[in-house]
Amino acid sequence: MKDSWATFGADLHLETKGSTGLRAGLMDALREAVRTGRLTPGTKLPSSRSLAADLGIARNTVADAYAELVAEGWLTARQGSGTRVARRAEPRRTATRAVPSRPVSSRPARNLMPGSPDVSSFPRAEWLKASRRALTAAPNDAFGYGDPRGRVELRTALAGYLARARGVYADPERIVISAGFVHALKLMGTVLRKRRVREAAVESYGLDVHWRLLTDAGLRIPHLPVDEHGARTDDLDRIRGIGAVLLTPAHQFPTGVPLHPDRRAAAVDWARRTGGLILEDDYDGEFRYDRQPIGALQGLDPEHVVYLGTASKSLAPGLRLGWMVLPERLVGEVVEAKGINDWSSSALEQLTLAEFIESGAYDRHVRAMRLHYRHRRDQLVAVLAERAPDVRVSGIAAGLHAVLELPEGGEASALRAAAWQGLALEAFSRFRHPEAAPGPDALVIGYGTPTDSAWAGTLDALVHVLWSVTSEP
Amino acid sequence: MKDSWATFGADLHLETKGSTGLRAGLMDALREAVRTGRLTPGTKLPSSRSLAADLGIARNTVADAYAELVAEGWLTARQGSGTRVARRAEPRRTATRAVPSRPVSSRPARNLMPGSPDVSSFPRAEWLKASRRALTAAPNDAFGYGDPRGRVELRTALAGYLARARGVYADPERIVISAGFVHALKLMGTVLRKRRVREAAVESYGLDVHWRLLTDAGLRIPHLPVDEHGARTDDLDRIRGIGAVLLTPAHQFPTGVPLHPDRRAAAVDWARRTGGLILEDDYDGEFRYDRQPIGALQGLDPEHVVYLGTASKSLAPGLRLGWMVLPERLVGEVVEAKGINDWSSSALEQLTLAEFIESGAYDRHVRAMRLHYRHRRDQLVAVLAERAPDVRVSGIAAGLHAVLELPEGGEASALRAAAWQGLALEAFSRFRHPEAAPGPDALVIGYGTPTDSAWAGTLDALVHVLWSVTSEP
Repeated sequence: MKDSWATFGADLHLETKGSTGLRAGLMDALREAVRTGRLTPGTKLPSSRSLAADLGIARNTVADAYAELVAEGWLTARQGSGTRVARRAEPRRTATRAVPSRPVSSRPARNLMPGSPDVSSFPRAEWLKASRRALTAAPNDAFGYGDPRGRVELRTALAGYLARARGVYADPERIVISAGFVHALKLMGTVLRKRRVREAAVESYGLDVHWRLLTDAGLRIPHLPVDEHGARTDDLDRIRGIGAVLLTPAHQFPTGVPLHPDRRAAAVDWARRTGGLILEDDYDGEFRYDRQPIGALQGLDPEHVVYLGTASKSLAPGLRLGWMVLPERLVGEVVEAKGINDWSSSALEQLTLAEFIESGAYDRHVRAMRLHYRHRRDQLVAVLAERAPDVRVSGIAAGLHAVLELPEGGEASALRAAAWQGLALEAFSRFRHPEAAPGPDALVIGYGTPTDSAWAGTLDALVHVLWSVTSEP
Repeated sequence: MKDSWATFGADLHLETKGSTGLRAGLMDALREAVRTGRLTPGTKLPSSRSLAADLGIARNTVADAYAELVAEGWLTARQGSGTRVARRAEPRRTATRAVPSRPVSSRPARNLMPGSPDVSSFPRAEWLKASRRALTAAPNDAFGYGDPRGRVELRTALAGYLARARGVYADPERIVISAGFVHALKLMGTVLRKRRVREAAVESYGLDVHWRLLTDAGLRIPHLPVDEHGARTDDLDRIRGIGAVLLTPAHQFPTGVPLHPDRRAAAVDWARRTGGLILEDDYDGEFRYDRQPIGALQGLDPEHVVYLGTASKSLAPGLRLGWMVLPERLVGEVVEAKGINDWSSSALEQLTLAEFIESGAYDRHVRAMRLHYRHRRDQLVAVLAERAPDVRVSGIAAGLHAVLELPEGGEASALRAAAWQGLALEAFSRFRHPEAAPGPDALVIGYGTPTDSAWAGTLDALVHVLWSVTSEP
């Protein structure tokens, strides 16, 4: 026994930072020996005196390590039977620890998928400055559990910003911070179901992940056709029993058209007449290029519109910050749905965004990005006009994506050609509601996604894809 | 008409930052005039030429403002009928905007509520340093949508830390980041229900908010009695149909006892025999004062234990960061429950914590706080020994709280006296499972909560509360 333990001792990588380090090292080594099956259940361990002598360390260190491993359940110590490996400490089937995997980027080199801003433009230095100011000024209670609506500093900053920039009728009392749009829509799904709403209309083109949040909450989702004036909100009255409607009024996703004034009016009229709710997804309301952004629908009727905003397009999805501006009567219900114990966003990040907005850095960033994206858009349009003049581009007055119309049947061959080019993009039909009538063949191009260095090559690949489609018989 | 508009114009607070500012100011003023009912639905507006003359600004500015308000739905413009206030733009019932409320601290001046660390000790400077390094080094994809398990940098740092400091068998592939313990337990409730588990045993003393998360998921929660050796895990076999058990092995909450080695063994044996799951709530495992922390139960059997940790006690609840170390077979199910689109924690905050751990700042902070809390605990014990020697203190070998035993019937009068003293604390019975047998009268004292400046006064108030109880007949 003593021999094997001497060998065992030689394997130990004992740290030399005093007795605590030695003890911890010994404990690790013993645990590992049990795990790997080198010490089998029931095995009697050498006395602490004898192992200490083998290892040339103090007896107390060994005795302490044994005592702690007994407390943890690895060893047992019974009067008269010494210290043994516990029966239940069975060796692991896979003895070696899995090698930590490094992040593998699943993105293709050329990415025109819609839905993400240019994350390489995240204003790191400005954000850090705001973070320093926020962290320095934060009251102690910012580090504790807080208001389930979110930090009042951020709600106050947002109220001012949204009123100024988006025409939203906002006051901090009716704002609730969420971990992004998806979180907010989940909450609304729960609230609608609790209100016994059964049908929430959606646009005939949109994001299925959003629709699924509503159906997961138990709602049916009839669709409103989308045409060149946006969603047919005048149809709301024709579909029975609708209690809510999810709209993208500033910039319909993915067609890119703004909701026509008459359609805005029809939506508000419907909500007032029926007590229905409009869920306004203002995902990229800040990015409009050829004129001032169209103000939010919410301003027209704050008691019938739930305004849903996010930092995911204007700053970065990685922040996981979104906000809801609610009709007054819904604030309590949303807070309840959020769960009184689910403060889901970091208070420090909330304070940083508040400081970022109040200092004017948010406005500056949005302005800079607007120029950046407009430049991208202009380049896209120019390149297509020159090199693929048959392709009609639409939905480009705002936002981070464009729709490229293809000849009939062109989607499938475009996707094949894109795969060949290592280019990621989405077919227009991918966004169609399952019950909606088929639409034209087209591509939805997210021109905000590529980094500056990848942009030219990505455009080139896109042109090749379009060539392969439009040159087909 | 012209006169009233001239008056109206005088009210406008037009910014002077060029025409965009003027237009925005005019739009705000017009919206506000509609909102407050000054301009009623159907009212015809002056021509852009005439209003521009009144206001002394360019006609185009007015025309643009009108056009945008038409696009937003505030005004209508019909051929031959001029520009009018839209019919649906009804004045708001409450014309004045609610005054933003400032945060009101709901905390009493003297706070001994358990459950929160000393948030005034948050290491702001060190955190900011880590934040700067993390933000500078972050790859661009950190700002995008990411791995639903959380950032690999944080999972890697945690795997190393948890193995070293808590004896957890962790590798980054089986770690999932959550927005804190509550979020993690919610996810586990969902996973358990999907696995058709119906009963999840809990300890007879604990937190009802945690129990509610399980019952909300549709689970029944039979209780295991807690004695001086912790939860009676040897009872697990006696209760039928249990599929999981929620335990606080390192430091039972609120009694403060560690789970006895035999009980650890019984829990693991049960899990292996039945395929059950142990949910290990290691909320304050780092804070043990009179000996090294007891390693996590998870190390004994990583395939049957879900380890749940959090930064809420070691750093601050405001970070909203927690972690789960999962049996390999559960990783996919937890990720599914989390929702493929619900990346609930800020990537920057995750990277900052990773950097904070890797740089050694986390260990230093935990060590410093351990000294701090031990000092607090020693002061509490010394003050009680001197001034309230009849009160037995227990559960103080670890953690941030102590249990103070009272004479029979003492809880109610202690709470009354505490209210009188403006002192917040919790009765022991508050943590009792509804079906558990009544326990002793006692108080649960969170000695980590008060700030340094409030500590002496808080202790003094506590002594007065105890006097009023123990001196009663």
